[in-house]
Amino acid sequence: MERVDTTISPRYAQIPTFMRLPHDTDPSGYDVVVIGAPYDSGASYRPGARFGPRAIRAESGLIHGVGIDRGPGTFDLIRCADAGDIDLTPFNMNVAMETAQRRLEVLLRDNAAFLMLGGDHSMTLAALRATAGKHGPLAVLHLDAHSDTNPAFYGGEYHHGTPFRHAIEEKLVDPRRMVQLGIRGHNPRPDSLDYARDNGVHIVTADEFTQLGIADCTRFVRETVGDAPLYVSVDIDVVDPAFAPGTGTPAPGGLSSRELLALLRATGDLRLTGFDVMEVSPLYDHGGITSILATEIGAELLYQYARSRASERKPS
Amino acid sequence: MERVDTTISPRYAQIPTFMRLPHDTDPSGYDVVVIGAPYDSGASYRPGARFGPRAIRAESGLIHGVGIDRGPGTFDLIRCADAGDIDLTPFNMNVAMETAQRRLEVLLRDNAAFLMLGGDHSMTLAALRATAGKHGPLAVLHLDAHSDTNPAFYGGEYHHGTPFRHAIEEKLVDPRRMVQLGIRGHNPRPDSLDYARDNGVHIVTADEFTQLGIADCTRFVRETVGDAPLYVSVDIDVVDPAFAPGTGTPAPGGLSSRELLALLRATGDLRLTGFDVMEVSPLYDHGGITSILATEIGAELLYQYARSRASERKPS
Amino acid sequence: MERVDTTISPRYAQIPTFMRLPHDTDPSGYDVVVIGAPYDSGASYRPGARFGPRAIRAESGLIHGVGIDRGPGTFDLIRCADAGDIDLTPFNMNVAMETAQRRLEVLLRDNAAFLMLGGDHSMTLAALRATAGKHGPLAVLHLDAHSDTNPAFYGGEYHHGTPFRHAIEEKLVDPRRMVQLGIRGHNPRPDSLDYARDNGVHIVTADEFTQLGIADCTRFVRETVGDAPLYVSVDIDVVDPAFAPGTGTPAPGGLSSRELLALLRATGDLRLTGFDVMEVSPLYDHGGITSILATEIGAELLYQYARSRASERKPS
Amino acid sequence: MERVDTTISPRYAQIPTFMRLPHDTDPSGYDVVVIGAPYDSGASYRPGARFGPRAIRAESGLIHGVGIDRGPGTFDLIRCADAGDIDLTPFNMNVAMETAQRRLEVLLRDNAAFLMLGGDHSMTLAALRATAGKHGPLAVLHLDAHSDTNPAFYGGEYHHGTPFRHAIEEKLVDPRRMVQLGIRGHNPRPDSLDYARDNGVHIVTADEFTQLGIADCTRFVRETVGDAPLYVSVDIDVVDPAFAPGTGTPAPGGLSSRELLALLRATGDLRLTGFDVMEVSPLYDHGGITSILATEIGAELLYQYARSRASERKPS
Amino acid sequence: MERVDTTISPRYAQIPTFMRLPHDTDPSGYDVVVIGAPYDSGASYRPGARFGPRAIRAESGLIHGVGIDRGPGTFDLIRCADAGDIDLTPFNMNVAMETAQRRLEVLLRDNAAFLMLGGDHSMTLAALRATAGKHGPLAVLHLDAHSDTNPAFYGGEYHHGTPFRHAIEEKLVDPRRMVQLGIRGHNPRPDSLDYARDNGVHIVTADEFTQLGIADCTRFVRETVGDAPLYVSVDIDVVDPAFAPGTGTPAPGGLSSRELLALLRATGDLRLTGFDVMEVSPLYDHGGITSILATEIGAELLYQYARSRASERKPS
Amino acid sequence: MERVDTTISPRYAQIPTFMRLPHDTDPSGYDVVVIGAPYDSGASYRPGARFGPRAIRAESGLIHGVGIDRGPGTFDLIRCADAGDIDLTPFNMNVAMETAQRRLEVLLRDNAAFLMLGGDHSMTLAALRATAGKHGPLAVLHLDAHSDTNPAFYGGEYHHGTPFRHAIEEKLVDPRRMVQLGIRGHNPRPDSLDYARDNGVHIVTADEFTQLGIADCTRFVRETVGDAPLYVSVDIDVVDPAFAPGTGTPAPGGLSSRELLALLRATGDLRLTGFDVMEVSPLYDHGGITSILATEIGAELLYQYARSRASERKPS
Repeated sequence: MERVDTTISPRYAQIPTFMRLPHDTDPSGYDVVVIGAPYDSGASYRPGARFGPRAIRAESGLIHGVGIDRGPGTFDLIRCADAGDIDLTPFNMNVAMETAQRRLEVLLRDNAAFLMLGGDHSMTLAALRATAGKHGPLAVLHLDAHSDTNPAFYGGEYHHGTPFRHAIEEKLVDPRRMVQLGIRGHNPRPDSLDYARDNGVHIVTADEFTQLGIADCTRFVRETVGDAPLYVSVDIDVVDPAFAPGTGTPAPGGLSSRELLALLRATGDLRLTGFDVMEVSPLYDHGGITSILATEIGAELLYQYARSRASERKPS
Repeated sequence: MERVDTTISPRYAQIPTFMRLPHDTDPSGYDVVVIGAPYDSGASYRPGARFGPRAIRAESGLIHGVGIDRGPGTFDLIRCADAGDIDLTPFNMNVAMETAQRRLEVLLRDNAAFLMLGGDHSMTLAALRATAGKHGPLAVLHLDAHSDTNPAFYGGEYHHGTPFRHAIEEKLVDPRRMVQLGIRGHNPRPDSLDYARDNGVHIVTADEFTQLGIADCTRFVRETVGDAPLYVSVDIDVVDPAFAPGTGTPAPGGLSSRELLALLRATGDLRLTGFDVMEVSPLYDHGGITSILATEIGAELLYQYARSRASERKPS
Repeated sequence: MERVDTTISPRYAQIPTFMRLPHDTDPSGYDVVVIGAPYDSGASYRPGARFGPRAIRAESGLIHGVGIDRGPGTFDLIRCADAGDIDLTPFNMNVAMETAQRRLEVLLRDNAAFLMLGGDHSMTLAALRATAGKHGPLAVLHLDAHSDTNPAFYGGEYHHGTPFRHAIEEKLVDPRRMVQLGIRGHNPRPDSLDYARDNGVHIVTADEFTQLGIADCTRFVRETVGDAPLYVSVDIDVVDPAFAPGTGTPAPGGLSSRELLALLRATGDLRLTGFDVMEVSPLYDHGGITSILATEIGAELLYQYARSRASERKPS
Repeated sequence: MERVDTTISPRYAQIPTFMRLPHDTDPSGYDVVVIGAPYDSGASYRPGARFGPRAIRAESGLIHGVGIDRGPGTFDLIRCADAGDIDLTPFNMNVAMETAQRRLEVLLRDNAAFLMLGGDHSMTLAALRATAGKHGPLAVLHLDAHSDTNPAFYGGEYHHGTPFRHAIEEKLVDPRRMVQLGIRGHNPRPDSLDYARDNGVHIVTADEFTQLGIADCTRFVRETVGDAPLYVSVDIDVVDPAFAPGTGTPAPGGLSSRELLALLRATGDLRLTGFDVMEVSPLYDHGGITSILATEIGAELLYQYARSRASERKPS
Repeated sequence: MERVDTTISPRYAQIPTFMRLPHDTDPSGYDVVVIGAPYDSGASYRPGARFGPRAIRAESGLIHGVGIDRGPGTFDLIRCADAGDIDLTPFNMNVAMETAQRRLEVLLRDNAAFLMLGGDHSMTLAALRATAGKHGPLAVLHLDAHSDTNPAFYGGEYHHGTPFRHAIEEKLVDPRRMVQLGIRGHNPRPDSLDYARDNGVHIVTADEFTQLGIADCTRFVRETVGDAPLYVSVDIDVVDPAFAPGTGTPAPGGLSSRELLALLRATGDLRLTGFDVMEVSPLYDHGGITSILATEIGAELLYQYARSRASERKPS
Repeated sequence: MERVDTTISPRYAQIPTFMRLPHDTDPSGYDVVVIGAPYDSGASYRPGARFGPRAIRAESGLIHGVGIDRGPGTFDLIRCADAGDIDLTPFNMNVAMETAQRRLEVLLRDNAAFLMLGGDHSMTLAALRATAGKHGPLAVLHLDAHSDTNPAFYGGEYHHGTPFRHAIEEKLVDPRRMVQLGIRGHNPRPDSLDYARDNGVHIVTADEFTQLGIADCTRFVRETVGDAPLYVSVDIDVVDPAFAPGTGTPAPGGLSSRELLALLRATGDLRLTGFDVMEVSPLYDHGGITSILATEIGAELLYQYARSRASERKPS
């Protein structure tokens, strides 16, 4: 199977997979499998992320396989496929969480890594469970306006404000190798950072990020993560609503797209094991700009993964 | 407490309650209490009905208390208040169903009836449970593109395709006094009407409605319902998506607004005990036309209730 | 000056005038002058009609000068120009009303008639003043969801709910030759029709229209108007919000576009002296469908005017 | 290959094909192959139909394989697949027309029929060429606000106003067995019907349709078509813009969805050989209502085809 | 009365007040009363700000009572209520101005301060009149793309381009302690700054702001204001249209949300006496991002007021 | 002819020309003629730019003739008119390119320069042909996310990805005096910059721009361009989609409006000969923010041209 060729098919034509990758519902032997998590039953404010994977795929045909000025294309370096979506019930949080974990475990058994397209952030817990099951406790770069370390509420164990609390409790992550960047504003509960900090997580608020600047932040991320296996989770609301209106709990005062993309470029020097782009709700998007940004983030992560693999394979 | 006066406050001003009714969070002694059910965790396709009650209230300030050419105003005939919303968890279907039932039971204990603004159609089961608990098995006029008599699926007992199946099973309704009108199209499962018909429910498809016409349909509804206590449930998708785009599972080929409103005028001659307007999803609306229609439906039902009460009070 | 030729210019090209008519800021000798009234300071609920004339002009390039199956084109029969807009202050209702009246009086001094594009309905009072000043008391066909015969409120003499009350008081119209058609719903004040009826105006509610049908309504309009000079005022909200969401006070249960256009076809047999299409608020429109309908109405009125003139010119 | 099962996958999940049919890029042996024509380079006013097939597919997951009250499902009666899109250049009208014709000819060589999803109406010429190549001169039921029998203009031989003129000139159709229904308004050129009528085409304007009613129209279509091989072409603008705002040249005064769907039900009694749903421009749609209607039309046509085949197979 | 508790009510539930504060139509004894000014009759270009207060309240349920990393919550430090809206006529600028002033004077008589949510900027004149009536001539931090020091035009004394000219003329403000920050572009009249500068107002254009940076600007504001009673007026168009599309006269080249919020943090060290957030027009917003930003600004101002009070209460 | 006076006409009134300039379809003797290129038949992804000139003109009434703090107004320094649009066929790329070139050549014969409003970027080739025909090989400041130096594909010689390749090949430009700034992301083909660089073009990617800063970039542009005749071409997608969602191939990570406007200020010191603002697609815009930005860019370019002329006229 080959990617759909844009010298033959216009970029708006044909059944849309992520970046026109081949559709393989039972993928095996790939470096990275793209997988959708169309789910918003963990959303506490605005729903719509169930349509996130479809919207991202629809816009992703626009872009090519590598950024400018970078040498070989991503898909010349690694093998990728789009496995479609996890079949997640919208009606039962516990069932959905288990379904996701099982599907992702199978993907990781048969392939090296996955890129998950969300879908609300609760599904990252399933991703961390599956990834930590393969690699052990993970370093995490968590880019988000919110720390997502809340306790359960409204009778929901696994809503989108809880994944990193569960991950810390279940020791899926190593909090000392975990950075949460972009946290800000009046939206999070005032004390929402306490749990994370008490467990050793490193928090860089949006204001601290502004003062530090990209270069110092990048250095701090590199030093904190070190050579631990790294999971990168991007909640699209880490950028300002101007750049990503299509999300469930937008928070003013966020990063620009340019800043976020610059940060991601650091991750290729680390030991990447998995990644996701979450909380894209097309119902609040306009002109597809949130989905296009999610696409660019996904493409950047795939390219950084290719770099990360390349450096691992090199004899040191 | 008084309604906000539009000779003093412009219709877009002040905190919006339904039709500018007084806000009373613990209502007692009213003829009808308006109550919101901001909930969409039972939605199988498009979410957003959790924002339905807010959107309907926001637009409802536009209208006055009675239609033209009708004599006294609704609020001169009956006492009404807006009780705000039921506090429904988005995360747990079973908890939400219980919460709704309890709240509605208390409303019916202290007041004569309620008008529920939805929210997805699953909440009508709670309404039927509470209303049947007070009045016994109910006649039902169910206006909808779908019969909502499906079994559970995706591990969800109480999703928005099931309320009338549960209601029949629990004997909350008398199927021989139940009319489902407006059913149509390729969206419902082909066999979705079998359960209803097998239990004696009278189905008038959208095509049959067109052929019968308003007058004959009205007569049929009256004869079927008779003097049984009547619950009217309006799924906004009974009208064509042109008239109500803001809904979760739109179905082309539906009624016009004019036809629907004409049908509702028949209900004031019957023994009305409760009513709802469901499945308004503002995320798919434009220009608020779906919410404005829901408002008009709610206002019409309140007026018909006033008529229904008036005829009951009269010595026969 | 010629109309922009669509065999040369695509319909989305060039500076948009109404139906690509020549732009003439000081028109003289025309049969009909198109004139915009970009104004919404009389709107009691939703503003935006100040952008109505621009939106109608932008979409009006789509259509040609005559309907199908009709013989000669409108612009082969009558001479028309677009005079641009009246310069109406948004800040002072009394000044705006005077400005409009003076501009329209000049237009009628130098030309036979005008087609006014609104703009909120308050401006129709200026139009009636100017037209009655030329022709004497007018017959009126007023197509609207509301009777617009309210008294002043909120300290505003000339808001969009008052023009026909002023017109009756000022004897600009002959109420016995005035038909208000399409009135409906819970939006108008219950007693809003009393003033009109008490003065002899003929009201056909939307429900009565449905029951009468087009043919009988048309006959009724013809008989009522007779050979009096006729002014036709179309409030776009006479049609259902499904057909015209872009308006200030939408009212469910209205006419379809097809019904409205059929009604207008009757007016060419009468003694047409002026017309307007009002209350187009593009801020609430989508896909331009309200503006396109307003365009079609305007084009139909121009064609009926051509017919009306032709029959007058014929020896009897 | 099987259809995606909605008891397992929610209707918004997985890579979207039309009605969740299997994706088969080289289909052979099917009764009907669904094929997209993502193209709008023939559009004279509003573009965007290049995104039509994607939008229709995205919404088509909502519906099931048969309408209510009809016995066996469409996909129990006929074998169908989604072949993806024709790779149409947006840059060269002549090349695109040839590419489409060749692809459709191959489809018809290997399969019984196709359902084309558009895309602007110019592509119907390619469809008629391919279908007439297989079946000889075709009867046509053409549902549209415009007759599309214009000559070339702006230097474009094959724009979306010309397909039926070419088809008549090339004798792909039998004009005496061709019905154009829904034509109306000020948008078509006044004389645009002359060419069709002069060649014997039967035109039913929207007004004539209203006066005739569904039953008589259906009878007229049946009698006109007779037992000739029938191609059905639905330009989505045959319905009023209220029902289908997402199209390139909307025309007020059109059919309702209910009327259109009722008309299509007649076609199953005829000798159906092919069909299309064209001119869906999602850029002007809202809430996906145009795409959902296109889906319902497509599903209805597939079902009527199944009926048509069944009656052919029966011994007479 | 208590705030609506988000551990019980989801953030989209219940009748929306600002930040879920108690609704008190006759407030007394509060530190800050939130009051809406639903008004756009002073808008010279795009209307819609009459719906501003409603939209801000609807989105404000999303956020909590204090920003991250700040210790006690705002509502633990100060007592606040939402008084609903001022009943402003849309029809008469002079009446509206007087109504607003009287209502705000009563609020200031019975409470310490108000946060006004607009509504167009003309209403800030009423706020300055009321506040200066209590505190004497005010220092002002005016954040805006325009200086709003124009003379009357179009026959309107109090349009949204004039409030600060009137305030200077009426000596409500001390121009030497007034900073206008963010002024820019081709939208303001070229000479619009002359009046302000000639009276001693300090203007920091958007370009000068970029060159100075946040820290120096903050210092400049502090030094200019000193210990004078300070009124902060935020016209939402001070940020770039990317961050706040929902406004009446958007101006490219503005501040980012992050920059604006950082500036506001300086005001807690000063002697805050009142504040407003103006010019939010939801008709031009998308995804509610402008309203969410207005909410964040309002929450930040309340918090800074709490800080400002705390420092005043401390013995020096 | 005079500009429409905003002290008389509100900014939303009258037939919209660019910045209310006089409409002159056969301009002669002007310094700059504004000309629209309503065309998108060269767009490879999203269409809609054919409506760009109309949308820009509609919003351009908002702004005045000079930025703040700058002395005399643009239109006091230079004579300008709006010539309307070039009549470009949407159906034939080669014909359109020739039509554009001829029209622009006539404009340059009779006037000093033009400001072209697009329209997709392919039309810049016609502009460069016409301008180089008058001034010889041009220096170019090309602000864009893409280098537009692709070869022909899909059978289209002149699509929007090719203009600068043709310009280099035809020696219309001097590559050593050409700067392409803002190039970025995964959207361009990886090797798309090779052709430009191999021919000596200076490329500043968006990342390099961030690192260099405005001041150094400005200096680099000045030094590169020198005293050669300069053409400035702004593809609106040079800014981030947050600032300009309304465009055909949006690319995250772009410049802010503030940065772009600052860059343009440098051009007035150079020998400006022509300019354009391209790729505005209102179909994907919201709240008109892209059109308003395009307006601001156009106004800035006109002002810089006035400065450029002034410095040329001065004796050195």
